[in-house]
Amino acid sequence: MAQTEDHLHPNETQRIEAFSDGVFAIAITLLIIEIGVPHVGGGESLASALGDLWPSYGAYVLSFVMIGIYWANHHSFFRLFVRTDHYFLMLNVLFLMAIAFLPFPTAVLGEYLDDSAQRDIAVRLYAFALLLPAVGWLLVWLYANARGLVDERLAPDYIRFLTAQYLLSNALYAGALLLSFLNAWIALTIVVGLTLLYLLPPRRPRFIQ
Amino acid sequence: MAQTEDHLHPNETQRIEAFSDGVFAIAITLLIIEIGVPHVGGGESLASALGDLWPSYGAYVLSFVMIGIYWANHHSFFRLFVRTDHYFLMLNVLFLMAIAFLPFPTAVLGEYLDDSAQRDIAVRLYAFALLLPAVGWLLVWLYANARGLVDERLAPDYIRFLTAQYLLSNALYAGALLLSFLNAWIALTIVVGLTLLYLLPPRRPRFIQ
Amino acid sequence: MAQTEDHLHPNETQRIEAFSDGVFAIAITLLIIEIGVPHVGGGESLASALGDLWPSYGAYVLSFVMIGIYWANHHSFFRLFVRTDHYFLMLNVLFLMAIAFLPFPTAVLGEYLDDSAQRDIAVRLYAFALLLPAVGWLLVWLYANARGLVDERLAPDYIRFLTAQYLLSNALYAGALLLSFLNAWIALTIVVGLTLLYLLPPRRPRFIQ
Amino acid sequence: MAQTEDHLHPNETQRIEAFSDGVFAIAITLLIIEIGVPHVGGGESLASALGDLWPSYGAYVLSFVMIGIYWANHHSFFRLFVRTDHYFLMLNVLFLMAIAFLPFPTAVLGEYLDDSAQRDIAVRLYAFALLLPAVGWLLVWLYANARGLVDERLAPDYIRFLTAQYLLSNALYAGALLLSFLNAWIALTIVVGLTLLYLLPPRRPRFIQ
Repeated sequence: MAQTEDHLHPNETQRIEAFSDGVFAIAITLLIIEIGVPHVGGGESLASALGDLWPSYGAYVLSFVMIGIYWANHHSFFRLFVRTDHYFLMLNVLFLMAIAFLPFPTAVLGEYLDDSAQRDIAVRLYAFALLLPAVGWLLVWLYANARGLVDERLAPDYIRFLTAQYLLSNALYAGALLLSFLNAWIALTIVVGLTLLYLLPPRRPRFIQ
Repeated sequence: MAQTEDHLHPNETQRIEAFSDGVFAIAITLLIIEIGVPHVGGGESLASALGDLWPSYGAYVLSFVMIGIYWANHHSFFRLFVRTDHYFLMLNVLFLMAIAFLPFPTAVLGEYLDDSAQRDIAVRLYAFALLLPAVGWLLVWLYANARGLVDERLAPDYIRFLTAQYLLSNALYAGALLLSFLNAWIALTIVVGLTLLYLLPPRRPRFIQ
Repeated sequence: MAQTEDHLHPNETQRIEAFSDGVFAIAITLLIIEIGVPHVGGGESLASALGDLWPSYGAYVLSFVMIGIYWANHHSFFRLFVRTDHYFLMLNVLFLMAIAFLPFPTAVLGEYLDDSAQRDIAVRLYAFALLLPAVGWLLVWLYANARGLVDERLAPDYIRFLTAQYLLSNALYAGALLLSFLNAWIALTIVVGLTLLYLLPPRRPRFIQ
Repeated sequence: MAQTEDHLHPNETQRIEAFSDGVFAIAITLLIIEIGVPHVGGGESLASALGDLWPSYGAYVLSFVMIGIYWANHHSFFRLFVRTDHYFLMLNVLFLMAIAFLPFPTAVLGEYLDDSAQRDIAVRLYAFALLLPAVGWLLVWLYANARGLVDERLAPDYIRFLTAQYLLSNALYAGALLLSFLNAWIALTIVVGLTLLYLLPPRRPRFIQ
């Protein structure tokens, strides 16, 4: 297990970040093609057909902002990693798999949010899909800490703060998922609220003096 | 708010630009998959079916050039930013959300431009969708100026020129949107005219001697 | 016109190449999603349905190789440009518009190549679509030469060789397009032959001693 | 053939890797859009419609991990190449063509895995499609060795180890393809098993002392 001894080849970090940025950029941009052009016949109105897509526009904005926030965080915190190993790469791939999955539940939410018979399932899938990258990122972080891949000049209480924050984030998304079994709108409100919260700037890294 | 004091880590700018370039490149390339292959039956002619797609080809060219111009401008002016902060990143994400949205109104315009009953709505959506990135870019620029993220060696009158230009651009797209309630063709002519205008080279940055 | 005096900011070339590479990579990878999964009913065979897609597989391979060759050439010759200006960027965007368009005629060719009634039109569209990036690249090259954006250490006869090669390439694709009005298979053979020819290594840049 | 004498321009490697990373990132992210949103009518349940998509989720995870592993390997081993030539670029394009093809057989597998009449064909296509990038990568490697593009400080036994490993990998995928003619589930088990095996870290490069 001498592998973790390696210092990160600077070019290597750049390729991990470039590949991750690619997946973020593609997942975020693919969101729009899940919104199909409405096909209206003779007597129908395009205006009302476009209006009927409001849940799709809402789901688009919500997922776009979520992926954007994950990108910004990935961007900020990847600089804290100074070494890498094979399993770290694989966990990053797992995390990206959760990000790349998001266009599907977003499209399902957009299609069924205003369908009272199916709304609950659509929101449950969406809450579950938002929990996945939170779990993935937590695993990346815990693994990086356990294997000493994190910059050792980081203040220990800052590391503890981040661990606590990621655990809390997982708990909140898990809570939203559980609540979605009771009431879809409450679960969705929590998910939107969490997104707004994450729009606030993250606490800045603190290093040992 | 000590955050704006930070000088931009060069690697950080590169990742913002790389992510933005990714979104530009994907949005611009996704435009084509909104044009579906026409399905023609026994007696029909593929030639006339392909010809009937002229509004889609036109919308493809128009949106491709628009996104290309935004990319070139983003590319030119991002070098004027020498610092960054979290909200700047978030506003850039908002701007990219407007860029990534463009394949949808482009597809709607392509489908309904030659349908006299629905043309007005399709043009209105398109004019609205072109206003969105103009607003987004103005917000990025105003925020960057307000928080001192812009290179302080830029000549003040050049900064005022850019602010005026971005405000004018917003006014013109808003005007096109308003005019689309009167006449779709006039609104579309303004939008095409603006695009041709933006093909001209931007005024080059002037620095304090 | 002092603009052409500027030496290319190294970061700037990288962003043009990165954006272009993004469009190449996306256009080339989007080719596959134009091949729809066949839907077979009870008595039908998936094997024969997959077999019936042979024109789509062929068109996929042909267009993939074409875009790959354009990428490799763009990659080789962009290093010969040592300055840039706004219109050069815009011509590069025009060239990329022709590249990004290719998934559409590829899909049309895949769908109608084995339909004797529509084959001619599909091949004509494909030959026309292959002419477009050839024209676009010629314009990029001629403009760069006319405005002195090309490395002045390049041997004049090498520049003349490239100009002749690009003109010939345009003539051959234009010829394939014209021949497609006589016989689709001959036109397609020329197009495939040209692609095989371009698989040969390009002549290497010669510099003035 | 003096071409192989050239040392790899560092910027050039970066562009090959950037383009390859782009194709990897796009192919991996496109996997999700092959899973269509289920359309359920009045009496039907979205939950069971989403549940019925289990083969699609499974195929998504399997192909995502496979492409992720190929990316990580491409990423590790491309640093062993210190020179390049035109045919090397073309073989890399061929390899990427096999990677970019994967979303299609993945979608076919997802659609027909639980259809007992068509399962065999879907698994056969999938096993064949996994053999293709294995063959492509072997060709890249053998060519690079034959033309002396590989870092000459690599230990000869390490080079022999890699060649043996790539040959074995080809043999195993070819075996899975052959077995798919006997039993689809056995073939699929081998494919999944190989994927799990490749999740283990690759042996690290050894250099001559």
